[in-house]
Amino acid sequence: MSTVAAEYSTTVPTPSAPDFGPAIALSCRECGQRRELGPYFACDFCFGPLEIAYEFGAVTREQIERGPTSLWRYAPLLPVPATVASTPTMDPGFTPLVRADRLANELGVRELHVKDDSANPTHSFKDRVVAMAVEAARNLGFTTLSCSSTGNLAGAVGAAAARTGLRSCVFIPAGLEEGKVVMAAIYGGKVVAIDGTYDDVNRFCSELMGDPAGEGWGFVNVNLRPYYAEGSKTLAYEIAEQLGWRLPDQIIVPIASGSQLTKIDKGFRELVRLGLVEDRPYRIFGAQATGCAPVARAWEEGHEVVQPVKPDTIAKSLAIGNPADGPYVLDVCRRTGGSVAHVDDTEVVAGIAQLARTEGIFAETAGGVTTGVLRQLLAQGELDPEASTVVLNTGDGLKTLNAAEAGITATIRPSLESFHEAGLR
Amino acid sequence: MSTVAAEYSTTVPTPSAPDFGPAIALSCRECGQRRELGPYFACDFCFGPLEIAYEFGAVTREQIERGPTSLWRYAPLLPVPATVASTPTMDPGFTPLVRADRLANELGVRELHVKDDSANPTHSFKDRVVAMAVEAARNLGFTTLSCSSTGNLAGAVGAAAARTGLRSCVFIPAGLEEGKVVMAAIYGGKVVAIDGTYDDVNRFCSELMGDPAGEGWGFVNVNLRPYYAEGSKTLAYEIAEQLGWRLPDQIIVPIASGSQLTKIDKGFRELVRLGLVEDRPYRIFGAQATGCAPVARAWEEGHEVVQPVKPDTIAKSLAIGNPADGPYVLDVCRRTGGSVAHVDDTEVVAGIAQLARTEGIFAETAGGVTTGVLRQLLAQGELDPEASTVVLNTGDGLKTLNAAEAGITATIRPSLESFHEAGLR
Repeated sequence: MSTVAAEYSTTVPTPSAPDFGPAIALSCRECGQRRELGPYFACDFCFGPLEIAYEFGAVTREQIERGPTSLWRYAPLLPVPATVASTPTMDPGFTPLVRADRLANELGVRELHVKDDSANPTHSFKDRVVAMAVEAARNLGFTTLSCSSTGNLAGAVGAAAARTGLRSCVFIPAGLEEGKVVMAAIYGGKVVAIDGTYDDVNRFCSELMGDPAGEGWGFVNVNLRPYYAEGSKTLAYEIAEQLGWRLPDQIIVPIASGSQLTKIDKGFRELVRLGLVEDRPYRIFGAQATGCAPVARAWEEGHEVVQPVKPDTIAKSLAIGNPADGPYVLDVCRRTGGSVAHVDDTEVVAGIAQLARTEGIFAETAGGVTTGVLRQLLAQGELDPEASTVVLNTGDGLKTLNAAEAGITATIRPSLESFHEAGLR
Repeated sequence: MSTVAAEYSTTVPTPSAPDFGPAIALSCRECGQRRELGPYFACDFCFGPLEIAYEFGAVTREQIERGPTSLWRYAPLLPVPATVASTPTMDPGFTPLVRADRLANELGVRELHVKDDSANPTHSFKDRVVAMAVEAARNLGFTTLSCSSTGNLAGAVGAAAARTGLRSCVFIPAGLEEGKVVMAAIYGGKVVAIDGTYDDVNRFCSELMGDPAGEGWGFVNVNLRPYYAEGSKTLAYEIAEQLGWRLPDQIIVPIASGSQLTKIDKGFRELVRLGLVEDRPYRIFGAQATGCAPVARAWEEGHEVVQPVKPDTIAKSLAIGNPADGPYVLDVCRRTGGSVAHVDDTEVVAGIAQLARTEGIFAETAGGVTTGVLRQLLAQGELDPEASTVVLNTGDGLKTLNAAEAGITATIRPSLESFHEAGLR
C-alpha cells in the first residue's frame, strides 16, 4: 500500500434512492434494445454500446437562463437529479464562447468563435463528463472513481472525487506530461502509470472491472460510460445558448474516442426537438493529429470501419489509436455534410501559437489540432468563410508546456544600458 | 531584435475620446490632493500614491445580477466605459466561490468558502487588474503594455495584449517557474528576464518609464497602477454577491505588494456606502510566506512602517520584499480587527495538498500560503470558528508544479498480476 493511500478521505456519501432525473433507461445504439439504468455499457443482445434514453419534460430558454452559471443549468436534459446544483460538485461548464475576430481576420472567415473549455475547474472539458459520472456513481453506490486516461481525465476524476468525498484510483500511460501527472496526483487519490499506450491502459481497465479487485469501482469511461458521455452534450447546449439560441453553421471538434463529437451532434438535435433553437443545417468537422488519425484515414478512404493505429503525436490527449466511437463519428460527419481532417505536429504547434497570439488563449495540443484543422479546411475551401463557425479548445496549454515553443526573449541586467544593448526597444 | 518580435500584431486600437466611466479624478491617498485622470501614480505635492476617485450613479443588486458573468457586471463601479463588456477583453472574474465543507470539517470551522481565482482566463487574479489597465491604456493612447512581474502578471498582460491588439513587453526576475515563463511568452509579446529579484525588476521598470525608450508604454503596475489596482475591488464585490449580498465575517488575503488586500477592503466599504450590503463588521487577515514576510514582521513588532527583506520562499508570486502597500495593509488589518500572519514553505506545501485533497482545488503556492494561514489562525484561536470565513486562492497549481509534492503511486505492466503485485487494491 502506498503512502498516498493514507491521505484518502474516509468520508463517503450516504446512499439514497437513485435519481437519474429525466433518464429512463439504457438503450443500445445498434439494435435499440432497452434495459434498466445501471452500471452497464454494452448491449446483452448485440454487444452494441448503450446510451441514455430520456423522457424530457417541458424546458424553456427562460428556465435555463435563470439557472446556475455551470452545466447544471441544463440539468433537466441530463441523467442527474434536479437538485444536483445544490450538492457539492465541481460545477464545471458554462465556459466562455470567445468571439475571435483577430484570428478570423488572419484566416479569412467572417464570424468565428472559440469555445474555450480550458476555463473548466481542472482546465479541460473532462470536468463535464466526470460530473455526470460522479452522479451515476452516487446513484449506483460506487465509492471509488476510476478511469483510463490520457491525462486530462485523471485530473478531472481526482478533483471531483476529492470534492465529493469519493476515493479515486486512475490509470495513465507512462510518460505523460508532468503537468498532467501532478494534477492527477495532487488530489490525494492513487495514480497508476502503465507501461504501454492508452489503448493498453484501456484494455487493462476492462480486465480489472471484471476482476474482484475492481468491485465497487466506478470506471467513469467504462461501466459508467453511458452517463459520462452525456456530459459532452452540454458543449452543444452552451454554444447554442451563447450564440443567442442559434446553432452554428459549422463546428470543428477534436477526436480522441470520438464520443465528444457524436454527443455534440446529439445535443444540437435535442435542442431542435425541444423547440429551443430553430431547425437549420449545421456541419460537424472532426480534427485529428496526423500521428494518430485513424478516423481521418477511414474518412479519406471512404471506409465505414476504423483501422486501429499506434499513436505517435505530441497531441497526447487525442492519442487513442482505437477510438470506440470512430464509426459513429464518420456517420455524423457524413450526415451533416462535414468531414474529418488531420494536421501534423508542426501544424499543431503553429496552431497553439496562432490562437495564443491572436486571442490570448493558451490551448493544449488538442486546441492546436482544431486550430490547425480550421486553418487547413479554410485554405482548402471546405469551410464556408461566410458561415458562422465555432472551433473547440478542450484543454489548457499549461498541461502541455513542452509543445509550446515559447520562451524568454532576452536576459538582461537591471539597467537601461543592458536593455539597450539587448536591442529590446 | 529577437525573432519573437516578428510575431507582434500590428493592429492597434483606434484612439477615441477617453471614457473612464464613474471615475472623475486621481486622488492622493496621503494628502487628498486631486488631479485629472492620466498616466500618473504619485502625488505632485507629497509623493503619496494616487488612487481613483469616483462619482457613482445609482446601482442596484438587480442591475448587477442582470449583467455579464464576468467582472464587467460591476462596470458602474470601475474606471471603465459602460460599454466595456461589448468590446474585446479577456472577460475575467465572476470566479467560483466554493463552499468548502470538507476543508471546514478538517479545520473545525463552521462556514468556509474558497474564492477560487484560478478560474480566471490565465488562471490567476491578475486578469482582473490587467483588465482595468487595458482600458486605461486604451483611454490614454498607450500601444504597448508592460509590467514588472513575479510571473502571473506577465501571463495576464501577454494574453490581454494579444486579445486586444496591443503590443506587450514584460519584465520578470530570472529563474521563474517554467509554466509562468511559457505562459508569459506564448502570446507573442516580448518577455525579458532580469538578473535580480522582483524588487530589482520593479526598480528597473520605474527607470525605463522615465527613459525615452519607455515612451508610449503603459506599465500596468507603475504608471497605470491607480487604474490597475481597482481590479482587486471586484473580488470583494463578487464575494459579497455570491454570499447572497452579505459581507463575510472574516477573510484571509495573500500579501504581495499588499494592494489586493487594501482594495478588497475598499470594495466592501463601497458596497456598504451604496446600500448594496448591510453594514456589519468584517475582519481582514493578511497572509505571507515566512521567507518573505515584511508586513507580518511589522505587524508582530507593532511597527507602522515595513522594513524591506530579501525574499527566500517557494511562494514566488508573493515574493515582494518591499511591498508598496505594506503600511496600508497594517492600517486595514488593525482597523478591521484582523492581523497579518505567515507560514513557512513546508506549511505552504501542506496547504496546497490539503486544499486539493479536501476540495479538488489545485492552488499555486499563494493558495498554499492562505490555506496554511487559515489553519494556523484557527489553531491559535485568532479566527472565530463560528463565523462566516472566506479564504482566497489567487492562482493555479499548474504554474508552480515544483511546489506540489505529488506523483505517480506506482508503475505497473498492463496486467492484473502486475496490479496485485504492486499492492494497489
